[in-house]
Amino acid sequence: MNEFEAINLIVNRLGSVATGEGVTIGPGDDGAVVRFEPEEETVVTSDVLVEQQHFPAGSPAGLVGYRSVAANISDLSGMGARPRYLTIALTTESIDKSWLLAFADGVRACCEETGTIVVGGNLAKGPKSIAITALGSVLSGRSIARSGADVGDDIWLTGAVGASVVALKRLRLPIDGTLEEFMKIRDVDAIARYFLPIPRVDFASLLIEFASSATDVSDGLACELSQLSSASSKKMRVDLDLVPVWDCADWREAVQSDDSYEILFTAPVSKRAEIHSAAAQTKTPVAQIGYVQEGNEVELLTKQGAIEVGVGFSHF
Amino acid sequence: MNEFEAINLIVNRLGSVATGEGVTIGPGDDGAVVRFEPEEETVVTSDVLVEQQHFPAGSPAGLVGYRSVAANISDLSGMGARPRYLTIALTTESIDKSWLLAFADGVRACCEETGTIVVGGNLAKGPKSIAITALGSVLSGRSIARSGADVGDDIWLTGAVGASVVALKRLRLPIDGTLEEFMKIRDVDAIARYFLPIPRVDFASLLIEFASSATDVSDGLACELSQLSSASSKKMRVDLDLVPVWDCADWREAVQSDDSYEILFTAPVSKRAEIHSAAAQTKTPVAQIGYVQEGNEVELLTKQGAIEVGVGFSHF
Repeated sequence: MNEFEAINLIVNRLGSVATGEGVTIGPGDDGAVVRFEPEEETVVTSDVLVEQQHFPAGSPAGLVGYRSVAANISDLSGMGARPRYLTIALTTESIDKSWLLAFADGVRACCEETGTIVVGGNLAKGPKSIAITALGSVLSGRSIARSGADVGDDIWLTGAVGASVVALKRLRLPIDGTLEEFMKIRDVDAIARYFLPIPRVDFASLLIEFASSATDVSDGLACELSQLSSASSKKMRVDLDLVPVWDCADWREAVQSDDSYEILFTAPVSKRAEIHSAAAQTKTPVAQIGYVQEGNEVELLTKQGAIEVGVGFSHF
Repeated sequence: MNEFEAINLIVNRLGSVATGEGVTIGPGDDGAVVRFEPEEETVVTSDVLVEQQHFPAGSPAGLVGYRSVAANISDLSGMGARPRYLTIALTTESIDKSWLLAFADGVRACCEETGTIVVGGNLAKGPKSIAITALGSVLSGRSIARSGADVGDDIWLTGAVGASVVALKRLRLPIDGTLEEFMKIRDVDAIARYFLPIPRVDFASLLIEFASSATDVSDGLACELSQLSSASSKKMRVDLDLVPVWDCADWREAVQSDDSYEILFTAPVSKRAEIHSAAAQTKTPVAQIGYVQEGNEVELLTKQGAIEVGVGFSHF
């Protein structure tokens, strides 16, 4: 099988998520042609997942496919944008048909769940990695940057942090189980949740109604708080007892290095009722974990007082 | 230096090509927010360059940066679109400041030359590769696909094929010379031209006035002709004596495996004067190399009759 045949194999397997409304020309030409609405802006984000750095070597292809797409869509959610289109550039040392098909199944599952269309991609020989670029849409002027947090705002978090910390400790490859089986247990099983983070697209599309700043949690909660803090030139004061932590996770590690792709955002106090209503409407757990003050640092509080945690996860 | 510092290093070095009109939010947030005109469609394309597969290991970083951007913009040109924005996902085993700065210089040179803005990216640890996604704009409904070639149309090619074939035979690393020096000699030096293909963006933006189908030449002329043929369900009949071949290139290799990122297109005979005028206006060499017939194959003719060449270049 050559690369063109392999690409066709993937595109065919993607089925309905490789075509749709707004797509004038889809996969197969030099580029895809897509149409956005005139009153919208386009949000674009790129993320690469490298085998062994971002997922263990030998991870099931379907799970890798889902996680790769979810990681990118999460960045769109962090801007308050709805996912629309994505391209997938895959590098692999050899063309393994069953791996490609399972990978496509994972991509498809996340795209179907989030209403995203795959409009193109690239296949090259090399160490396994997946580079995805996702395009989303947001009403013009209504994207949520990291820079809008204001003094007195609440700090909020969807879901919980720490599933990825637990998963990476427990994970022993090879693991059994189909994509469908993992989908069913991701609310309770850390490994399933690590590979299949829950896209917060419905809740994220409502952020424009109440959020003053937002980001997704891909480099640890402490690091993301630090990003909001420096972009907004404000102090982020978080009560760690209010931060939902995944069962059995070490709370320090959960705050420091988790990438569960939840949404961290700030909002005026006057929006509390609206936020709880949006959460209920979209079945999204939310927690108010702190508030914004004058200053330019992150303060993490426990019952024993302020603590220091290493910020973020550096790959280098 | 951690990855955030390294990203800042690159963004700062990109200077004016990392901000500009139409960019609401640029590099540094979860995603970039960009604005297109309402009467336009967006063209999106992704290409990955893997060290040793797409450029020799140890190639000068500035040249790699330029070529990576040019390869993606060329896909937009092949659709008749104007480049607008791009994201760059770089993976590298270690953060080497001087390499990153030189790479950014190469990216910047190609972006400045083509009016493209870098709106974001990603930096991850892994074997060296560059995954770029480029976004371009085209008047709604006017993108040029591979599928529109009609019987009787002429087949045209910009520039010449074969520089990359000559370059890869001659190349001995390390090579000396700055990006600026290579820019000056790329009209005559195969190695300079290989790393710094000439973006055909001005000519490509006029394709909508006359072309019936188009593609860029990234997988060998024979392969690209075959793509036009199958997408348009027509026969592509090319007279190889009319195909401009780079000095000293083996013509068979030039037709089979060159990736000089020229534009291959078809157009009605009635448009010949307009095409020559567009070529003169944009200082783009063009050659009429054959014509479109009923059928579904590629016919390559020499004075000795039709010949067979291997089609394309498979990386696997």
